[in-house]
Amino acid sequence: MSEPDLVVRDLALVLTMDPERGEGPLGALHDVAVAFAGGRVTWVGPSREAPDAPDTRSLPGAIGLPALIDAHTHAVWAGSRADEFRRRLAGESYTSILEQGGGILSTVRATRDTSEELLARVAAERLALLAAKGVGTVEIKSGYGLDPATELRMLRAARRAGELARVRVVRTFLGAHAVPAELRGDRAAYVDQVVNEQLPLCAPEAEGIDVYVDRGAFTVEEGERILREGRAHGLHLRIHAEQVAFTGAAAMAARLGALSADHLERIDDDGIAAMAEAGTVATMLPGAMLYLKDTSPPVARLREAGVPFAVATDLNPGSSPVPDLWTCATLATITMGLTVEEALLGVTRVAARALGLADAGVLRPGAVGDLAVLLPPPGDPPVAASLIQTMSGAHPLLRVHFGVPV
Amino acid sequence: MSEPDLVVRDLALVLTMDPERGEGPLGALHDVAVAFAGGRVTWVGPSREAPDAPDTRSLPGAIGLPALIDAHTHAVWAGSRADEFRRRLAGESYTSILEQGGGILSTVRATRDTSEELLARVAAERLALLAAKGVGTVEIKSGYGLDPATELRMLRAARRAGELARVRVVRTFLGAHAVPAELRGDRAAYVDQVVNEQLPLCAPEAEGIDVYVDRGAFTVEEGERILREGRAHGLHLRIHAEQVAFTGAAAMAARLGALSADHLERIDDDGIAAMAEAGTVATMLPGAMLYLKDTSPPVARLREAGVPFAVATDLNPGSSPVPDLWTCATLATITMGLTVEEALLGVTRVAARALGLADAGVLRPGAVGDLAVLLPPPGDPPVAASLIQTMSGAHPLLRVHFGVPV
Repeated sequence: MSEPDLVVRDLALVLTMDPERGEGPLGALHDVAVAFAGGRVTWVGPSREAPDAPDTRSLPGAIGLPALIDAHTHAVWAGSRADEFRRRLAGESYTSILEQGGGILSTVRATRDTSEELLARVAAERLALLAAKGVGTVEIKSGYGLDPATELRMLRAARRAGELARVRVVRTFLGAHAVPAELRGDRAAYVDQVVNEQLPLCAPEAEGIDVYVDRGAFTVEEGERILREGRAHGLHLRIHAEQVAFTGAAAMAARLGALSADHLERIDDDGIAAMAEAGTVATMLPGAMLYLKDTSPPVARLREAGVPFAVATDLNPGSSPVPDLWTCATLATITMGLTVEEALLGVTRVAARALGLADAGVLRPGAVGDLAVLLPPPGDPPVAASLIQTMSGAHPLLRVHFGVPV
Repeated sequence: MSEPDLVVRDLALVLTMDPERGEGPLGALHDVAVAFAGGRVTWVGPSREAPDAPDTRSLPGAIGLPALIDAHTHAVWAGSRADEFRRRLAGESYTSILEQGGGILSTVRATRDTSEELLARVAAERLALLAAKGVGTVEIKSGYGLDPATELRMLRAARRAGELARVRVVRTFLGAHAVPAELRGDRAAYVDQVVNEQLPLCAPEAEGIDVYVDRGAFTVEEGERILREGRAHGLHLRIHAEQVAFTGAAAMAARLGALSADHLERIDDDGIAAMAEAGTVATMLPGAMLYLKDTSPPVARLREAGVPFAVATDLNPGSSPVPDLWTCATLATITMGLTVEEALLGVTRVAARALGLADAGVLRPGAVGDLAVLLPPPGDPPVAASLIQTMSGAHPLLRVHFGVPV
């Protein structure tokens, strides 16, 4: 073990999120110290056995866990979708608004008109809101450009936003988010553009690729072509699947080795079996379920098949303008039926798996030196359930961020 | 008009919340200046006509509205109810948990063991979370003491918490929140204690009185007796009514002149008619509806009868641990069917009416000098809907607090 440069000790409870490192499914440890060197965790153990370090801090009574991971966002955007919110309250559907040039397409118009620097600055404000509640890693998708130059600009802005907000950003190319207005009626031409022009340009600026396969978006065949091309460029695969209508996209993506399939309100048993077989994570997006007044994904059937759950904000200006991962974790328990443990693993360990990150979401030697620390008020026992119950900050929450290069 | 000591100008949009002072139900004004003197608003009008002042600030592009009012909270408490959250997720009912000595009674045990200073300090942290999102006035109830000394201590702690957090606090005596464990089985004796011992002691430290009339709590007859006694002590009347079971409490309270009846999931047409006749505000508590997986109050019937809506957090450790009034306003639109305008009036003008405050919730000369100011990002037009859509702070929100004595 290298000499630590910092030790944080006397944490009352640490959830390592690794059942092999502590009690129960969350790997709980009591009276814990964590040592760091060079922005990495080097040691986790009892406070009384903590190594010496030039900088030692004591946080008695606190609860620690790995900094949270938001595994599905569209956090780079320009413009407002407030009018659309009113239209949906009045009963209009998400798909109908999109078909009339609203929804995603209205955000595309605003985003195309906005500079990289301004996109980055506004996105950094959103990341800062997430980070203020303990989030350390955020996945951000492109998909409001729908042309080569703007897709690339979004991915660069996402990287810059992470630097500004000191959040680790994982970037996903989502050129196939919608068909742009200028190619309406010629989806095949747009898919060619995604594959032949956008992807070669954007792949060096992304770690993953995603496709929105659904009614009003792309077909399973188009999605498969795009994901295969993305895989050939070395990108991780993800998919928006089975949200508005059942298409079979989740099974297709799982068979291609997708790390996650997201939404899944209408997934069938074949899709669930394919995900379980491939080890694909099911990313739950309860903000979109709330805002779209949608039904829940079949959580019990996914659980029974052994599919792991991530929980993410889906932060976007239309269907989930909720920059709060704790709120989404709590919604996932109440409105979808996840257990408290599933939700907490879903914003840490399983979220890391959905992003292909081996060094985040679990507190162990080698992990990034990035903790979320909750300071319960006096008299409030440090128990795991209180993390999620008091989601929106009934207790002060710190992010303790130890020099990780972001 | 007295000489202003401060002018805030160039606000793109101000929602005065007074339809007689601007356009539409929210009284919208464009390109607005607001003048203040001695902690009060003295003038509202076009920026080009703004008076001179020693201190002038320009907030171009911003949206202003009166600081929000949270008209129903239990923000003073000690202890945790995290275990109860798990029990409810597993299907146990709120009433069953209370009957087994959990719920409110577990918070009573912790609160009785906690000093006034500590209660105040922890409550002030909760008020600061509300204030950070533009809330300027918070109603706080007692009701976790259930004995004379602790009820009084809670009300004093509530005042102290407001001073610490620089939030205006309106205090409500709620001795009749539950029957304490030591008088279980002798509710009549406890009602006598509330009326004869607690009320005389607590009335000087409160502006209002509230009773929880429901299955597992107090009867309509007991509630009526307690409210009448409170009224004789000069307190405003409020009631928790028709939440778990229909009792007729809302109609009773309305006929006594209650300012608000809160919850109302199971109110009947007679209760609605009595509220409309008396001008009693219906306070919607969507946090509790979410956490208890309850049904919505009959918003359409209340609206049709002309009953005005307030929206509040019901902030408490059990059924609504949500220290975020914007989240609750948004939930009220999505899950209860309030319009955007009803929700915004419900956290300002109508909330003030529910608390009997004539100088808050509306932006006009004489009002407290306390604004919530939203700074939309570039390219996001200043429209009322964006206030509520981006509830949790997708845009930065300031509270501009001008020396109001709190």
